[in-house]
Amino acid sequence: MTRKPALAVVGATGAVGAVTLQILSQHADVWGEIRLVASPRSAGRKLAVRGEECEVYALDEDALAGVDVALFLVPAEVAARWAPIAVAKGAVAVDASAAFRLDPDVPLVVPEINPHAARIRPRGIVASPHDTTLAMLPAVGALHAEFGLRELVVSTYQAVSGAGRGAVEALRSQLSLVAGTELGAGPGDVRRAVGERGLGPFAAPLALNVVPWAGAVEDGGWSSEELGLRDETRKVLGLPGLRVAATCVQVPVLTVHSLAVHARFENEVTVARAHEILATSPGVVLYDDPAAGDFPTPVDVAGTDPTWVGRVRRSPDDPCALDLFVCGDNLRKGAALNSAQIAESVAAEFLL
Amino acid sequence: MTRKPALAVVGATGAVGAVTLQILSQHADVWGEIRLVASPRSAGRKLAVRGEECEVYALDEDALAGVDVALFLVPAEVAARWAPIAVAKGAVAVDASAAFRLDPDVPLVVPEINPHAARIRPRGIVASPHDTTLAMLPAVGALHAEFGLRELVVSTYQAVSGAGRGAVEALRSQLSLVAGTELGAGPGDVRRAVGERGLGPFAAPLALNVVPWAGAVEDGGWSSEELGLRDETRKVLGLPGLRVAATCVQVPVLTVHSLAVHARFENEVTVARAHEILATSPGVVLYDDPAAGDFPTPVDVAGTDPTWVGRVRRSPDDPCALDLFVCGDNLRKGAALNSAQIAESVAAEFLL
Repeated sequence: MTRKPALAVVGATGAVGAVTLQILSQHADVWGEIRLVASPRSAGRKLAVRGEECEVYALDEDALAGVDVALFLVPAEVAARWAPIAVAKGAVAVDASAAFRLDPDVPLVVPEINPHAARIRPRGIVASPHDTTLAMLPAVGALHAEFGLRELVVSTYQAVSGAGRGAVEALRSQLSLVAGTELGAGPGDVRRAVGERGLGPFAAPLALNVVPWAGAVEDGGWSSEELGLRDETRKVLGLPGLRVAATCVQVPVLTVHSLAVHARFENEVTVARAHEILATSPGVVLYDDPAAGDFPTPVDVAGTDPTWVGRVRRSPDDPCALDLFVCGDNLRKGAALNSAQIAESVAAEFLL
Repeated sequence: MTRKPALAVVGATGAVGAVTLQILSQHADVWGEIRLVASPRSAGRKLAVRGEECEVYALDEDALAGVDVALFLVPAEVAARWAPIAVAKGAVAVDASAAFRLDPDVPLVVPEINPHAARIRPRGIVASPHDTTLAMLPAVGALHAEFGLRELVVSTYQAVSGAGRGAVEALRSQLSLVAGTELGAGPGDVRRAVGERGLGPFAAPLALNVVPWAGAVEDGGWSSEELGLRDETRKVLGLPGLRVAATCVQVPVLTVHSLAVHARFENEVTVARAHEILATSPGVVLYDDPAAGDFPTPVDVAGTDPTWVGRVRRSPDDPCALDLFVCGDNLRKGAALNSAQIAESVAAEFLL
């Protein structure tokens, strides 16, 4: 086949869609047509991709016809309905939502770790992991390949932009409210300044606070994001018995998820070898010299593609365990970039 | 001895000193004289304690004469110099700083856990743990007594007030700066808004950020606060071989340290039994019903005495491991309250 494949970007007008159009404009151009699709209320808008203004089409069956790859950057319930329709129309669907991540007939792919999994897709669908999991996987997967991962204990410091524009606006408005007062020094001050209506989508005020909850309530007191991080990590790494305990916490950061990772391996580790691996792994930047003030933080990492890794330490009590701190932009690798990489790997099949 | 013991509060004019004077005014009054002591520049000020205005004396040998218990709420280098002088003058010194915490001849005491340790003090000094360690120990110690602690993996979410007034002012000013802009949505925006001079005592901007560093650089890439949390927990619990891996992270919160704790025990655990223990342990409040939105957060806990515990979960992969999220006010139990409790336990010896 010499024709370049056609791509549909479904959800082109959202926050992740905007980053995706940037990425498609910057990457090597493997696509023929790029068709922008969104909800009917966005139809007719024009958005730039590859230097050209393109019209946005309303999501319907016609919009998915004649497409080779359909990238779904939409809520799970929308993807659950429309990805199978895209497949029935002849496309490979690449889904960034949670709809198919744990479906045994849908591969869950991080191209730096398990690229070949994307080629076996019984349902015609390939899924991309959740942004929190993606922020750590390039680093953890590289260390696993060398040392053999046995157990992860993870605590997250999650930015609000993963929760959508409403979450970003709520944090902005909360910060303005507390900045205008004595900034919430006393008990209840922040709750009073923010008010019930100022909570936005959060379970508690996020300005001057951290909120140990993300997702839906699951059995045993776990949140859906905590169990998702466990299940998705197991699936991507091909380690169904991996022990994973996660605590997901939202913090007042706009963009970039951070994770404190305690990883126990089958084999003894050294910081020197871990540094070598991380410094040479695709999609990973090692930034680790605390004496020089070098460790990743969200505001320094925002807008970049890789997983940044710092604070690499060997446990003083366990020669098989490493502790690290990782930061990854949840809108880029966490969503748009990983999905675009998967779509490009599918496109490469067409060009063989 | 029928005379009530005399107490010196050294560092009475600082943030922890202010909370201590509140606590001494609220607790059962076991003291004869309460003498307020601070640096010479604060001498002559008047502060209220037990409803009376008291003059502040400059720290010198005379200020420590005739005192039975001297409470040191001052930087480590000041305590290192003056606590032994107080002892030489006949007092028992209770020190909230790091100066003596790991001295084998100085007991490190959390009254809910190891009250009797305060009675064996070869140097005449009793130390109080670091605020981060204190935020978790009442809960972790209670669970240890039942299940037998083997290993801790801890990630912290540390408030700025533990780092002093300069840190609080720096965060307030950073928040005002970013609230006046587009709030740092892009890479570098927060760094530009805050500027080099706006960093204050932090290694990176703290507004809209998290900073994975606290303390001094130690061997192996560890920070002094991370190793301190390990060493102090071992000492208070009397578990010299306890495995502890901590990652200390500063967050844009004014007061209250939070910790995500993964605790592995010798024996199998259940959430139900852990709930019973935590609900009935002194100094601990169980607040754990995510379906009802009940979990502790810093802004709700600020200004209170106990360690608040929520998100209690048994690891799905390890029947001997619990995950929990704890919050504790670093100025109260984390500093002023624990030291006052130790001083009161020493006072009780005088009243026997």
